[in-house]
Amino acid sequence: MESLRILGVDPGLARLGFGIIERGPGDSLHHVAHGCIETGADTPLPERLRHIFQQLTELCRTHRPAVMAVEELFFSRNTTTAFTVGQARGVALLAGAEAGLAVMEYTPMQVKQAVTGYGRADKRQVQEMVRLLLRLTSVPKPDDAADALAVAIAHAHAGRIGELEARLAAGKRTGWVWERGRFR
Amino acid sequence: MESLRILGVDPGLARLGFGIIERGPGDSLHHVAHGCIETGADTPLPERLRHIFQQLTELCRTHRPAVMAVEELFFSRNTTTAFTVGQARGVALLAGAEAGLAVMEYTPMQVKQAVTGYGRADKRQVQEMVRLLLRLTSVPKPDDAADALAVAIAHAHAGRIGELEARLAAGKRTGWVWERGRFR
Repeated sequence: MESLRILGVDPGLARLGFGIIERGPGDSLHHVAHGCIETGADTPLPERLRHIFQQLTELCRTHRPAVMAVEELFFSRNTTTAFTVGQARGVALLAGAEAGLAVMEYTPMQVKQAVTGYGRADKRQVQEMVRLLLRLTSVPKPDDAADALAVAIAHAHAGRIGELEARLAAGKRTGWVWERGRFR
Repeated sequence: MESLRILGVDPGLARLGFGIIERGPGDSLHHVAHGCIETGADTPLPERLRHIFQQLTELCRTHRPAVMAVEELFFSRNTTTAFTVGQARGVALLAGAEAGLAVMEYTPMQVKQAVTGYGRADKRQVQEMVRLLLRLTSVPKPDDAADALAVAIAHAHAGRIGELEARLAAGKRTGWVWERGRFR
């Protein structure tokens, strides 16, 4: 199986978390990079959005991920926050699309389910599982970067399920069967 | 006085209104173009945002505005709508910044005040004033395009006020005075 490099994004205007992982042979997960793109409140909004766009474009150029996975956001304290985060999110999705990546969205519940096996896991459980799954010595900091790694992991798992389903469907057509972890 | 070409934007994901005007000598306003960029609900979100970005970039290339004026949005029926509109708005602001335009934001009240002289004017009053100020035979359609022309007019007026203030300040330094509509 080919390895797959995934860029996870936790959108925000003041601070946008990113995390890059690679899913290798045998579904192994590898940490590649993580961090934050930060913009100052005293910078005009169009320039803040431009900075986010350019930094994400640069990350795509440097690390060559095939997929961007972004958390799907529905709720917020208020509509002003929603507008603000939405603007950063729109620019992030655009950066992924313009760089030629497949851009996927996952709900917070899907991310929690994929990372911990439990859709209502709390933030600490998710972060600890991120650490374990990527074999890191400590939880990645800041939280936004850890969240971004979590959504990348969610895609690694979800994509794998999709592939298995496709192979199972192919198996049905070819007469192969999926047994004890492989096709026979 | 140099003429100034302004691109007004009324942000939305399914339908983004745009309106281009020119402020000429003697503060005269001229209609250049208006219309909508539409994206289908069945198209993946990243592609919808990309379409908006590319169409706005193309408009900037074709009509060469110097300024993008965008309505500043704070309120919405709910946070989901706010996220959705925010995403389109972020991409619009980015398109303006990437095309090298000065990107300005105006609150709905500023737009109403600038177009009708009354910050609480209703939608119909604003649209009728847009028609009158641009000497159009009918109100521009659809509403989103008329709203975009309104925010462009708001910048034309606000920018003019800023210039007058600057000239008044300069006048104070030079000993000129602003009297009966011009410097003496």
